[in-house]
Amino acid sequence: MRILLTNDDGINARGIYELYHSLKDIYEIYVVAPVSQRSGAGHSITLNDPLRIDKYYKDGVFFGYAVNGTPADCIKIALFKILKDNKPDLIISGINKGANLGTDVIYSGTVSGAVEGTMSYISSIAISTCSREKPIYSSACQFLREFIPVFKTEILPEYVTLNINVPNLPYNMIRGVKVTCQSYRQFKDHFIERTDPSEKSYYWLTGEIKDVNQNDNTDALAINKKYISITPLFLNLTDIKFMDKLKKWTLKK
Amino acid sequence: MRILLTNDDGINARGIYELYHSLKDIYEIYVVAPVSQRSGAGHSITLNDPLRIDKYYKDGVFFGYAVNGTPADCIKIALFKILKDNKPDLIISGINKGANLGTDVIYSGTVSGAVEGTMSYISSIAISTCSREKPIYSSACQFLREFIPVFKTEILPEYVTLNINVPNLPYNMIRGVKVTCQSYRQFKDHFIERTDPSEKSYYWLTGEIKDVNQNDNTDALAINKKYISITPLFLNLTDIKFMDKLKKWTLKK
Repeated sequence: MRILLTNDDGINARGIYELYHSLKDIYEIYVVAPVSQRSGAGHSITLNDPLRIDKYYKDGVFFGYAVNGTPADCIKIALFKILKDNKPDLIISGINKGANLGTDVIYSGTVSGAVEGTMSYISSIAISTCSREKPIYSSACQFLREFIPVFKTEILPEYVTLNINVPNLPYNMIRGVKVTCQSYRQFKDHFIERTDPSEKSYYWLTGEIKDVNQNDNTDALAINKKYISITPLFLNLTDIKFMDKLKKWTLKK
Repeated sequence: MRILLTNDDGINARGIYELYHSLKDIYEIYVVAPVSQRSGAGHSITLNDPLRIDKYYKDGVFFGYAVNGTPADCIKIALFKILKDNKPDLIISGINKGANLGTDVIYSGTVSGAVEGTMSYISSIAISTCSREKPIYSSACQFLREFIPVFKTEILPEYVTLNINVPNLPYNMIRGVKVTCQSYRQFKDHFIERTDPSEKSYYWLTGEIKDVNQNDNTDALAINKKYISITPLFLNLTDIKFMDKLKKWTLKK
């Protein structure tokens, strides 16, 4: 089984390094990841600048390819250039430092790396550990080692990406696995104002997250209750239910 | 009615200029848009760099605020800084030069500007004219002048964004309006290789679009048949139907 890894924390991040080492003796692993931190990249692609591919070494040995782009760029250039004649069976994006729950998935570079794989008809997983402070990657690694063989026996439908979040706990303290819905999270955005040496203002985006609509089945609730959350994300955003109502609006022309 | 305009082609683009002028005598209009071209920005936000807000003048008069960020950044800084005490009733992102149909919406900066509004519970529309060559903006303007009053009498559900695409034709040649589903488009990506003066390679992302799964009801088909397409996009990506099957997978732990 050939597995392609990417992330949005950058190729030098701890999460992708631990993931690589937990899988490299079992599978054929390739790493194509952003040269630097691309958190919040959403599903952006680089159209107005060229991309460069550099070999990246870690611990004195070849680790993977660093690309000066977004996670989606990395998957595109991996599939259509680096691994053109050698397509992977599975793409894993992560392990992200910090949760990708609820509405966050819309901003998430980690999720977009996996979504880009799905769009090219390759089974793809995004995986995150749910803390930015003292992240524990070993539990996500251990879960993936158990979960990947499932892909050999099951079929992921077209246009579906799995978004996996793992509680930031030692593996034996995690209670199990839940199949969940994306929750809603409201961002209370703030902009912190600073001034530069010439007294011009600039602003840093910051904010707090508030979970809303937490029904029993959401990703956020599963994590709070110490379960691994797996949400299947579908790439067709059409609100089918609302279509009939919309047809009744007085749409002129 | 107070309307906030943004786009991803940049504040100096023709599309937002024509939109502004077609609405400014009827509504209270604010413009907050990227200082430069941000096509393909997807739903990215700027976390690692600060944002600046500059007043932008056109034809010798104040036109709006230029922000050195993405469309989603523009909406955030508009809602939480520039129009903090003066929230808009409607957000329109566009008029984009070129279609945002099918799977494109996942990459679209235009759509992400509208989605960001929806996430802040403000009715939001993305609008595009379906040609990058000789774009005709007047038809989209005319349609919006007819469509905006509908918002006063109808209710757009929470978490729904309207993605409107307009055939690139004079208004009297457009056959009508269809409520549509997002189609699927497959990108056949290519990377064009160039070398810099020191003989290092770099790559330009390019590619062709191929529409797939064109059932009767898709956005792409409506446009081909010279109809305006309105697709309601829902911000919860959960594949509810697949959840039950996924629960039957052997999810260890």
